[in-house]
Amino acid sequence: MPIPSRFKHCPNCGTVVDYRVPADDNRERAVCPACHAIHYQNPLNVVGTLPVWEADGRVLLCRRAIEPRHGLWTLPAGFMELGETTAEGALRETQEEAGADVEMGPLYTVLNVVRVGQVHLFYRARLRSPEFNPGPESLEARLFAESEIPWDDIAFKTTRETLRCFFEDRRRGSSYGLHDIDIA
Amino acid sequence: MPIPSRFKHCPNCGTVVDYRVPADDNRERAVCPACHAIHYQNPLNVVGTLPVWEADGRVLLCRRAIEPRHGLWTLPAGFMELGETTAEGALRETQEEAGADVEMGPLYTVLNVVRVGQVHLFYRARLRSPEFNPGPESLEARLFAESEIPWDDIAFKTTRETLRCFFEDRRRGSSYGLHDIDIA
Repeated sequence: MPIPSRFKHCPNCGTVVDYRVPADDNRERAVCPACHAIHYQNPLNVVGTLPVWEADGRVLLCRRAIEPRHGLWTLPAGFMELGETTAEGALRETQEEAGADVEMGPLYTVLNVVRVGQVHLFYRARLRSPEFNPGPESLEARLFAESEIPWDDIAFKTTRETLRCFFEDRRRGSSYGLHDIDIA
Repeated sequence: MPIPSRFKHCPNCGTVVDYRVPADDNRERAVCPACHAIHYQNPLNVVGTLPVWEADGRVLLCRRAIEPRHGLWTLPAGFMELGETTAEGALRETQEEAGADVEMGPLYTVLNVVRVGQVHLFYRARLRSPEFNPGPESLEARLFAESEIPWDDIAFKTTRETLRCFFEDRRRGSSYGLHDIDIA
């Protein structure tokens, strides 16, 4: 998931863009010399959940059927779309990737991944059922106790950090407040 | 701040794009019939602060020198840029719009504005000085006690909601936990 490649052509009229600092700005932008449109490129949000089966405290992970990190484990998450809230996007990804039925809880982690221009937001969620129906982006979806987490086969640092915070908060009996974390 | 207009041309090669649902996807995207690039459009983050002068509890607002909402009052905030975290962007906007010297505090509100494809994130911040030096995007920057807030002249609902949460939390003596709010 690299930073989106720089625009070469104007998405509005197709002319080759210039890169320069527009008036009243302080950063280089793609500026169209023909239609004068300015095209901004900004970070993207990835939204997901940390689904917990409360009967035994296990958490849901999905094994990726797609690149990057094919075959590794992740919390259900994906790019936020226009037309939805962060929580709606997180719920949608949980349904699409795991086929899981969850009740959404509070926002739990906000993780900045500056290197790839992404902000990841994970919500805690309560599983209504321990049955899953993983979609085409997942090889499988299953529950893990803390002692079973495949730490060496976790796909993304944002999943690892969210799991780490959760197990630490749970051990401490603390209140699961928001964690705002920068990923190096 | 409307949703960015739909791409007409491929930013990669300039060809007129088609709108169709790519294989392994479930939404219409801008797809280039020539170079086959798929171009996604996603929500944008707006990041800002709620700066407080702790000596007397007043909060900092800026009066907008630019459209939209020229002449109305807002918390310092703006679009998050590539290469920065949400907190770094919020600090930068506070410096650019108010010329304020702040110590950043915790993330306080996450507000989804689905209608315009934006997520607004506000951090609490402690002013180190009550002196400001507003930039070209602000007509003025000044401190307001709760009783002085110009509620009828607030530029954006996300500023209004963040202020409302803050004064309510402060009156209650509560812990200023995160507020995750959907703006209709």
